[in-house]
Amino acid sequence: MKKAVILVSGGLDSATVLAIAREQGFETYALSFDYGQRHRSELVAAAHIAKAIGAAEHRVLKLDLTGWGGSALTDANIAVPTSAAPTAGIPVTYVPARNTIFLSLALAWAETLGAVDIFAGMNAVDYSGYPDCRPDYIAAFQTMARLATKSGVEGGAITIHTPIIKMTKADIVREGTRLRVDYAITVSCYQADACGLACGVCDSCRLRREGFAAAGVVDPTRYA
Amino acid sequence: MKKAVILVSGGLDSATVLAIAREQGFETYALSFDYGQRHRSELVAAAHIAKAIGAAEHRVLKLDLTGWGGSALTDANIAVPTSAAPTAGIPVTYVPARNTIFLSLALAWAETLGAVDIFAGMNAVDYSGYPDCRPDYIAAFQTMARLATKSGVEGGAITIHTPIIKMTKADIVREGTRLRVDYAITVSCYQADACGLACGVCDSCRLRREGFAAAGVVDPTRYA
Repeated sequence: MKKAVILVSGGLDSATVLAIAREQGFETYALSFDYGQRHRSELVAAAHIAKAIGAAEHRVLKLDLTGWGGSALTDANIAVPTSAAPTAGIPVTYVPARNTIFLSLALAWAETLGAVDIFAGMNAVDYSGYPDCRPDYIAAFQTMARLATKSGVEGGAITIHTPIIKMTKADIVREGTRLRVDYAITVSCYQADACGLACGVCDSCRLRREGFAAAGVVDPTRYA
Repeated sequence: MKKAVILVSGGLDSATVLAIAREQGFETYALSFDYGQRHRSELVAAAHIAKAIGAAEHRVLKLDLTGWGGSALTDANIAVPTSAAPTAGIPVTYVPARNTIFLSLALAWAETLGAVDIFAGMNAVDYSGYPDCRPDYIAAFQTMARLATKSGVEGGAITIHTPIIKMTKADIVREGTRLRVDYAITVSCYQADACGLACGVCDSCRLRREGFAAAGVVDPTRYA
């Protein structure tokens, strides 16, 4: 069975990606990060998801990104926006270089596992303001990764799979529902409380709620 | 004064790079990693170097890479090689995706500082077996970094400076000597003891010793 490392945040998107990787026949190694995010209850969710979807292993790597702040998700002095109006430019919830850091660590784990496949839940539709969610960024990361590593140099073509990058939230919900993902155990909220209850008003909650509505699937989210 | 983030390991190469960045007029932000390396005394050296060369700030980020091992530097079960004979292929001291992880975190800090310059001490001459020390890897990282970040997208051209990448160890020693780097406070040894004393027999010690000899500079290294 081919091994793959999957970035699993605890949210709806990456849970769906984990289920997609499993359906494609991969033995899945789920990787999460305790990086000082406000919504740490997503890590509890990540563990539940990894177990429910059948990951071979789940690791949580500790990595403190609060020291330099720079994002509403890691800096207590920057508020999480709750306006429904899309903001111009790059949102304050953007965490500097986060996906690059996470993919780099996934690459390291993949290399020690002898895996050349990495799955991640970037999405360019809902998160169009995040530079590190775009297909051209992913392609550039893959090119770099093939040059960076022993496995890349020695012939294994490292592939960064982003199966939901062009899907709408409704598409993702439909795909995950087909794959029997239990979205009740996922946490998408940027400021979920310690029990994983969602605020219902941040951008992430709004997108998620609209996704269920558009997909015609009952929203199982536990709101505070 | 333009800001730059400099990867400072505590060794000879990165100390020289820090001095080069200072000479070029940058306000320097030194970044080191406590990643579970055998030779943790290099972190004490890094702090001394940052102070001696005049970095505006020095940070040590904790990041445990021992969990997945895969290298003689992070896995207690893999011995550090001491043979003078160059090994074929990629050395066991290669740490999977290490430079990609370190550059990614430098990129994140740079972004929060409003800096678009990153300096790193990769060297393709002595470390020709490490895939992530080659110029084409650095170029690919830079391309990716410009797509990955807010600062890249909004027009600041992120640059990864690797001023010593094509120098021999003797060239590096000569350049650092010109810049008055105090090499006595640097630690290059892969298995330096807790006081920073070098083993004198690992590949890194051998390259360093040969570098001083070829440069005609007295070797100030403190050997065990």
